[in-house]
Amino acid sequence: MGKALAVSPLAPAAFPALPEIDGVEFATAKAGVKYKDRTDVMLARMISGTVIAGVFTRSATRSAPVLDCQEKIGLESDKGAAIIVNSGNSNAFTGRSGVEATHAVTAAVAGALGLPERRVFSSSTGVIGEPMPHARITTKIEELAANLSPNGISDAARAIMTTDTFPKGAMAEVEIAGKPVKIAGIAKGSGMIAPDMATMLVYIFTDAEIARADLQAMLSDLNERTFNSITVDSDTSTSDTLLMAATGASGVTISAGNTEFREVLHGVMLDLAHQVVRDGEGATKFVEVNVTGAASDSDARIHAMSIANSPLVKTAIAGEDPNWGRVVMAIGKSGAAADRDKLTIRFGDILVAENGWVAPGYSEDDGGAYMKQQYLSITVDLGLGSGASTVWTCDLTHGYISINADYRS
Amino acid sequence: MGKALAVSPLAPAAFPALPEIDGVEFATAKAGVKYKDRTDVMLARMISGTVIAGVFTRSATRSAPVLDCQEKIGLESDKGAAIIVNSGNSNAFTGRSGVEATHAVTAAVAGALGLPERRVFSSSTGVIGEPMPHARITTKIEELAANLSPNGISDAARAIMTTDTFPKGAMAEVEIAGKPVKIAGIAKGSGMIAPDMATMLVYIFTDAEIARADLQAMLSDLNERTFNSITVDSDTSTSDTLLMAATGASGVTISAGNTEFREVLHGVMLDLAHQVVRDGEGATKFVEVNVTGAASDSDARIHAMSIANSPLVKTAIAGEDPNWGRVVMAIGKSGAAADRDKLTIRFGDILVAENGWVAPGYSEDDGGAYMKQQYLSITVDLGLGSGASTVWTCDLTHGYISINADYRS
Repeated sequence: MGKALAVSPLAPAAFPALPEIDGVEFATAKAGVKYKDRTDVMLARMISGTVIAGVFTRSATRSAPVLDCQEKIGLESDKGAAIIVNSGNSNAFTGRSGVEATHAVTAAVAGALGLPERRVFSSSTGVIGEPMPHARITTKIEELAANLSPNGISDAARAIMTTDTFPKGAMAEVEIAGKPVKIAGIAKGSGMIAPDMATMLVYIFTDAEIARADLQAMLSDLNERTFNSITVDSDTSTSDTLLMAATGASGVTISAGNTEFREVLHGVMLDLAHQVVRDGEGATKFVEVNVTGAASDSDARIHAMSIANSPLVKTAIAGEDPNWGRVVMAIGKSGAAADRDKLTIRFGDILVAENGWVAPGYSEDDGGAYMKQQYLSITVDLGLGSGASTVWTCDLTHGYISINADYRS
Repeated sequence: MGKALAVSPLAPAAFPALPEIDGVEFATAKAGVKYKDRTDVMLARMISGTVIAGVFTRSATRSAPVLDCQEKIGLESDKGAAIIVNSGNSNAFTGRSGVEATHAVTAAVAGALGLPERRVFSSSTGVIGEPMPHARITTKIEELAANLSPNGISDAARAIMTTDTFPKGAMAEVEIAGKPVKIAGIAKGSGMIAPDMATMLVYIFTDAEIARADLQAMLSDLNERTFNSITVDSDTSTSDTLLMAATGASGVTISAGNTEFREVLHGVMLDLAHQVVRDGEGATKFVEVNVTGAASDSDARIHAMSIANSPLVKTAIAGEDPNWGRVVMAIGKSGAAADRDKLTIRFGDILVAENGWVAPGYSEDDGGAYMKQQYLSITVDLGLGSGASTVWTCDLTHGYISINADYRS
């Protein structure tokens, strides 16, 4: 964490040009929570009437800010809202003082912006178990409030980074009922990424108008197919937070059944989820794992995650080794139904194995050449039913070890 | 696999002096299955009346030899028995030809030793999915049969090694009803080690006389607390095999309730299991994870394995970083019951965290000094009930990546 990390080879060429979202303003500051000489706090303010939905880690050792958000998320209000996020300290496993720190920060934001405290959501990301120096944040709230600006979202994406090597953003603009609707999202995350979300913070903003229950249902459902379908290292953060704010400022009302908005939102979420994988700690390969023909969708997901989390599969990918035997191993150990002799395995379009053995036309040279690509797909058909699942992961490299063996030093 | 690996820093000082077991003979040969210029096949022959029990991987993609052993293991016979093992090729996911290869090898042994084929057990360990060149083994059977010797067990331990950096053996001698009884065991394994056993082959021999059902029950039960309680990388092999042969040649009959023999056997199995962890691929630290105070024993095991398999915990240990926050994370993600504010965490005897936060007397200097040791213990008390579990693992280092990213090259 001390040293600057090289930007991931899988990083997008540039941070996207995110549109301003009517009704949302951002500010960032250098609070010195842990990092020096960089922004580490971001504040977002939303206008009155904004609807907020959220999805959070299911960890049994959730951080104080996550517990606080979960208490507040269902409360309705016609007031504005705010989100305050710091990097450098996760305020997780910090006992009673952690609860007090969260309260101190959200109360300071509420006071500065004239909001009820229940409308101020907070996240903290960084080291677990160290006391949160919340005074470093609260002394910056007035400065943040004074600097709020509609075009500050790219700075916000940078302020929330920890071991991330690039800021993550995605956007969409769509016309609904003849009027433009915008979505802009930012995310952070590169390690401790696994189902039940990750050390992943995601904030998505739209100027659409949508009922809270509808937004929450849409967000929860899409989350399963995006952020909950990526894994870097099988570890699950205590701090994962996905918040979405709909300001309604566009005047376009989205009904629960609006598939157009839903698909566009899905695209933004998937883009951000993929960017988290592309910034996986030490990652050099982006891998899509498709499982089809499983006895059920949940079986397919178990197999897909077993492949995507297997250290032996992930090190083989790092070594550009088409070691499909390890895919067989991961299927075998997953606990979900499989019949060795009905498996079909493909690397990209290359048929590697079928009928319980290597495919007759398969050559190691073809497999080896394929594995040299940066973007890989592994497809397993189980030949048992119609269950299917797709998850995304990265390889396991020396970079992951280097980053995590001296994280706190 | 191509290059010689440095011996694990956690290796025992020397291979133990294993006693000859009355009624068992060993031979080894250089068959060139994959490796050149080293032994890669071992044969063990047991006298008439020998009882065989076994435990096997639960992988859904089990290898042909494992399936063959499982078919044979329950069959009684007053004939002798044999075990034939090769390294270099696992004969797993090799379709119909794999079944034929297993049959060819066991039939050749049966013919050479005058045994029914159902009394010949085989194991294969090495790369998955490559055709087994079984003729290289069958042409060596006569040579193996001619060289059988009561004192060949240490050579056998060497012949079954793959990425192992040292041969693994353990023994015990105990007096029961005034007569000596001996146990000698060998094992191989260093990667793909996880619950449901591992790429682990274990062969234990005793001159005790014991009914097959009693031996099987004892072996299965002790297996849960030894080989099934270690993990190197959370990956589960398609080939795991634990076979135990009781020749009865000592004339000492062991009843099902004999706790003395059971405890001695437990010690041998635990010793071998620990040696597998001490040879974990790239391991520099041996870690015991104790979980107490869980709602149930099975909850305790889930927590213990979640800690022991967490890449972030294991990389922190590699970096000698007392990063107890990652232990909190692993508890939180495991899915078993936990209450953040009732957790107690200890590194060795050092109280690190309690009551939902770092312990008042804990200092990072103490934690850091402790982590420099080679043998570490992490103890978590959940404060919920009386469930307990102990598992053993190693750290996750650059060595693991190096070994597994170019295993086949």
